[in-house]
Amino acid sequence: MHMNIAVLGTGMVGRALANRLAELGHHVAIGTRNVDATLSHTAKGSMGLEPFKDWIEAQDNVRLATYKKAAVSSDLIVNAVAGMHSISALESIGARDLAGKVLLDLAIPLDLSNGIPPTLVISNDDSLGEQIQRAFPKTRVVKALHTVYYQVMIHPELVPGNHTIFMGGNDAEAKQVVRSVIASFGWPDESIIDLGDITTARATEMYSRLFFALYGKFGTFNFNINVTRATK
Amino acid sequence: MHMNIAVLGTGMVGRALANRLAELGHHVAIGTRNVDATLSHTAKGSMGLEPFKDWIEAQDNVRLATYKKAAVSSDLIVNAVAGMHSISALESIGARDLAGKVLLDLAIPLDLSNGIPPTLVISNDDSLGEQIQRAFPKTRVVKALHTVYYQVMIHPELVPGNHTIFMGGNDAEAKQVVRSVIASFGWPDESIIDLGDITTARATEMYSRLFFALYGKFGTFNFNINVTRATK
Repeated sequence: MHMNIAVLGTGMVGRALANRLAELGHHVAIGTRNVDATLSHTAKGSMGLEPFKDWIEAQDNVRLATYKKAAVSSDLIVNAVAGMHSISALESIGARDLAGKVLLDLAIPLDLSNGIPPTLVISNDDSLGEQIQRAFPKTRVVKALHTVYYQVMIHPELVPGNHTIFMGGNDAEAKQVVRSVIASFGWPDESIIDLGDITTARATEMYSRLFFALYGKFGTFNFNINVTRATK
Repeated sequence: MHMNIAVLGTGMVGRALANRLAELGHHVAIGTRNVDATLSHTAKGSMGLEPFKDWIEAQDNVRLATYKKAAVSSDLIVNAVAGMHSISALESIGARDLAGKVLLDLAIPLDLSNGIPPTLVISNDDSLGEQIQRAFPKTRVVKALHTVYYQVMIHPELVPGNHTIFMGGNDAEAKQVVRSVIASFGWPDESIIDLGDITTARATEMYSRLFFALYGKFGTFNFNINVTRATK
């Protein structure tokens, strides 16, 4: 089923998700705080990211809009804004326009000010997923995909063998929508583990420390974990 | 190679480790704060744990001693004291008697006062493993085994297929000792991932939240994760 999807965030992760969703036939609006400012940058970004204007000119089925305009006409919103700025981006849309929407939150509240591995701004007794759900109680927040590198999110075949992707959220119907999107990226149904309600975002956000430790060990982001258990 | 091993902690985890290490031919002292008090409890403990006196009478090659006496004559110390009491148990041994010793720390600083899933008393910018290493700088601390249920630590075959066990610490020789103990429990060498120095204890201790989320999902502790990656 093709949807109108708003991808919030014009960085590496937002671009990759927007491109992949458009490739799968969805109508995608990529959202930013300030359209003119986003189009005016001509220098490469960090890690050689090409200027946004060059990137979007090469896209089919992706249009640029403000966070709010992108979100209003969408069936699904994907939060790919950096964790520390996610709430502020969502506030610019406003609770009224976010009410009832399915929000796939894949941000992690990383504090990268001391480099890699980062610490978390929120953890242990709270999570970004929960903060978003509390700030927008009528929005149907699903935390998912954030336990793997952004390329692995949309191309799970980059990692060999069976491996797991997690989701959590309070709304069963919203989780069904997100599950179908995850499946469309290439994740087998049995690889998707629904951990439960949105408080499980603590578990998956806190996993990020192990994620970065494994990156430090391997020197590649193309890895993941597979949950295996006795079924008796 | 058979060693003199001190297992600190007389709870479920300490007992299981002591029993398994004795079964493997080591000489094991199980350490407690107060020997008389430990032997005097006649009621069952939480989760039906049998009185310690009954348990130890059935053991071969495990003797009861104070933390200090157990540690002094050991080649390897296993910390199986509850995370919140670990430093205090180690202080009762003292830095001088701990100097040079290999300490396998498998405790997690869980705050179980609000039940399961627990939060962590230490996390994000510090870890119990690091606190122990800082408190006893001449002790060779290796954080390992704490990412799985205590039965899985000593019987990895309880979980089907390939799955991973982590270690971290500053001393290569100490990690070699711990690696050989882990291998003797049945972990294939390729399943053991040395994440690096003791700061990686943050990663593996913070993983505990996902561990408890998975327990909440499955209703069994007999599970684990397998790290899988592109090898090029």
